[in-house]
Amino acid sequence: MSDTYEKAGEAGDGFRSMWRELLPVGRHAGSGGYRRHAWTSADAECRAWFVEQAEARGLSHEIDRNGNQWAWLGDSGAGDAVVIGSHLDSVPDGGAYDGPLGVVSSFAALDALRERGVTPSKPLAVVNFGDEEGARFGVACVGSRLMAGVLDPAHARDLRDGDGVRLADAMERAGRDPEAIGRDDERLSRIGAFVELHVEQGRYLADTPHAVGVASAIWPHGRWRFDFRGEANHAGTTRLVDRHDPMLGYAAAVLSARELAREAGALATFGKVRVEPNGTNAIASLVTAWLDSRAADSATLDALVKAIDEAAEGAEVTRESYTPVVDFDVPLRDRLARVLGGVPVLPTGAGHDAGILASAVPTAMLFVRNPTGVSHSPHEHAEETDCLAGVTALADVLQDLL
Amino acid sequence: MSDTYEKAGEAGDGFRSMWRELLPVGRHAGSGGYRRHAWTSADAECRAWFVEQAEARGLSHEIDRNGNQWAWLGDSGAGDAVVIGSHLDSVPDGGAYDGPLGVVSSFAALDALRERGVTPSKPLAVVNFGDEEGARFGVACVGSRLMAGVLDPAHARDLRDGDGVRLADAMERAGRDPEAIGRDDERLSRIGAFVELHVEQGRYLADTPHAVGVASAIWPHGRWRFDFRGEANHAGTTRLVDRHDPMLGYAAAVLSARELAREAGALATFGKVRVEPNGTNAIASLVTAWLDSRAADSATLDALVKAIDEAAEGAEVTRESYTPVVDFDVPLRDRLARVLGGVPVLPTGAGHDAGILASAVPTAMLFVRNPTGVSHSPHEHAEETDCLAGVTALADVLQDLL
Repeated sequence: MSDTYEKAGEAGDGFRSMWRELLPVGRHAGSGGYRRHAWTSADAECRAWFVEQAEARGLSHEIDRNGNQWAWLGDSGAGDAVVIGSHLDSVPDGGAYDGPLGVVSSFAALDALRERGVTPSKPLAVVNFGDEEGARFGVACVGSRLMAGVLDPAHARDLRDGDGVRLADAMERAGRDPEAIGRDDERLSRIGAFVELHVEQGRYLADTPHAVGVASAIWPHGRWRFDFRGEANHAGTTRLVDRHDPMLGYAAAVLSARELAREAGALATFGKVRVEPNGTNAIASLVTAWLDSRAADSATLDALVKAIDEAAEGAEVTRESYTPVVDFDVPLRDRLARVLGGVPVLPTGAGHDAGILASAVPTAMLFVRNPTGVSHSPHEHAEETDCLAGVTALADVLQDLL
Repeated sequence: MSDTYEKAGEAGDGFRSMWRELLPVGRHAGSGGYRRHAWTSADAECRAWFVEQAEARGLSHEIDRNGNQWAWLGDSGAGDAVVIGSHLDSVPDGGAYDGPLGVVSSFAALDALRERGVTPSKPLAVVNFGDEEGARFGVACVGSRLMAGVLDPAHARDLRDGDGVRLADAMERAGRDPEAIGRDDERLSRIGAFVELHVEQGRYLADTPHAVGVASAIWPHGRWRFDFRGEANHAGTTRLVDRHDPMLGYAAAVLSARELAREAGALATFGKVRVEPNGTNAIASLVTAWLDSRAADSATLDALVKAIDEAAEGAEVTRESYTPVVDFDVPLRDRLARVLGGVPVLPTGAGHDAGILASAVPTAMLFVRNPTGVSHSPHEHAEETDCLAGVTALADVLQDLL
């Protein structure tokens, strides 16, 4: 990959310097992971960094009604713009790459274009979508969903974080107007194509000689809340037969979900749990757990979640989000694969802002190789040579689209 | 019970008025349960209430080196004192009775003695032991354990709450000197007998015609921390076979613990869980859960915990506390039962400050009937007539001991 590395030239230096600047922001000293949650101070630092990058390149910048951040080269209102970017927020104790790699690579790709002497014939924008991970308020891709009109603004305003803070209040404290959020057709109409570069969150490319791949589709996926209700009581004095301990129902559901997912060739995960009162010597009164489930098609996914629901006897199950299968724009996807010299085309189980935008504008994704496949973890990693190959690929794609 | 009710007289009025004053302190509006945790503002309010009660009765009051609060009638240094009392702190979302019933009843019993014209021939004290529940720092009976010399002061100072605050710092912020904590032989030597009245945390008395019972023993019990380690990863992209999901091991341990406890005729409860990173779309990297286990004898308890440990494959298990069986002072227990006219004598699975003091001074406990057996819950309840019967019983015991 030394060839790609050389080709990256000044854009490569820019990439490294941007990457270094962003690395300490929102990093937790204990876990080594990132806690860049929507509308927190870490989020504000990421946004300030974005503004600096835009200004350093003479780009105009703005935040749209839904909290997404834009940096424009050329006339932002002219239409048929080519938009690239991703997000800067993280899951709790997430890695450095999921999201930021796409934003940093986008600015670096602009640098590469300039280096190549390319003058864009269309407006070009870098976007940082707000609250992609949904780590704080429980709904993913809030910024892009609102813009695309697939998330009800009143519902979004009323989402609450773990401390009971409303999304609307968090936005307001960050200087945004929560009353202005909602479907933004005017902005969508400016976009001719959207390309999101993202670190791969699996090991598909790791087994190939390719540093970069193109996305074919996103598996349908969703989140379901399971409320197991019981009766709080003293753990030291309540006979087993007198107990209504919801931890038992939860434990059985965890094991059933894994077994049913295995049978279905799909994915099911309980990764988040909240226990009340969560005291060492108190039988729980309520165990709330969130199921994340995904499958190659909706029929499989729906049947799997139904089976887990039935296995979790007595649990109250609420669907909190659901994203149908996303097939990316076939002509655009084929064009990218061709420009990049026949790189692999692969599906993914992860949701992305690109998956939301795909319903409104021609959209594509590039994946950068992940040697371990680990993501949503401090151990998430991509080799620098692969990241720079991603920058070059994104610049090649831009050059072709502009 | 209307007979007892009448007998309570002014002491009954005092009981009701004290009870009303204490009811709103530290009560959570959402859950309806109490959050009176050690060295919090709710704890300070409880302590201020205690001082008011002492002063209203002309009692001298003080806080000992270990944060326990004392109100004295007579010469506190004379020795052979009869001490009554309990604690005012709570588990998370606990009930109103566990602890406070003993303290309120103690002041009311003093009122009853005065009403009866009894002049104590010995010093008499009401005590409010600090941090009995261990809800904040994870170790129960901190105040009495320190006093009795069964908790290492350096270890205690270094205990941390969920926010990482050290017990020493919490004490200091509350105006106490954490360097002064530790074994207090001088104070123990003043005590001739200790009697703790407590709401029953089971349904033994509920099936009898008796409002009050006497404790025979406390089951051996302990807390063990189970750390299930895995590898954080993306829940939407990591194949099941590539996962190291510690939630599965935890779930299996919950079900094993219940089954093994049932077979042993003992108790085992996982009521507190902490998940990292606890994100909806992240496979957990670490599940930490606390086992509370109790049995009629140490051999059964030890065998049970060993079996649960073995069933929880790969978990790292740490014993955080262990209290051997406590047999209360037999002559004192028999004397109480006789004074109270042959009330039931029953064992309990719950730990108490009385269980700690029993190793140092003649100690006894009175239980007040709990119609549902529910405790450590907002639904914990005792009938007022039974509470007043408890006050009368405690006054009868005092009159006999003084």
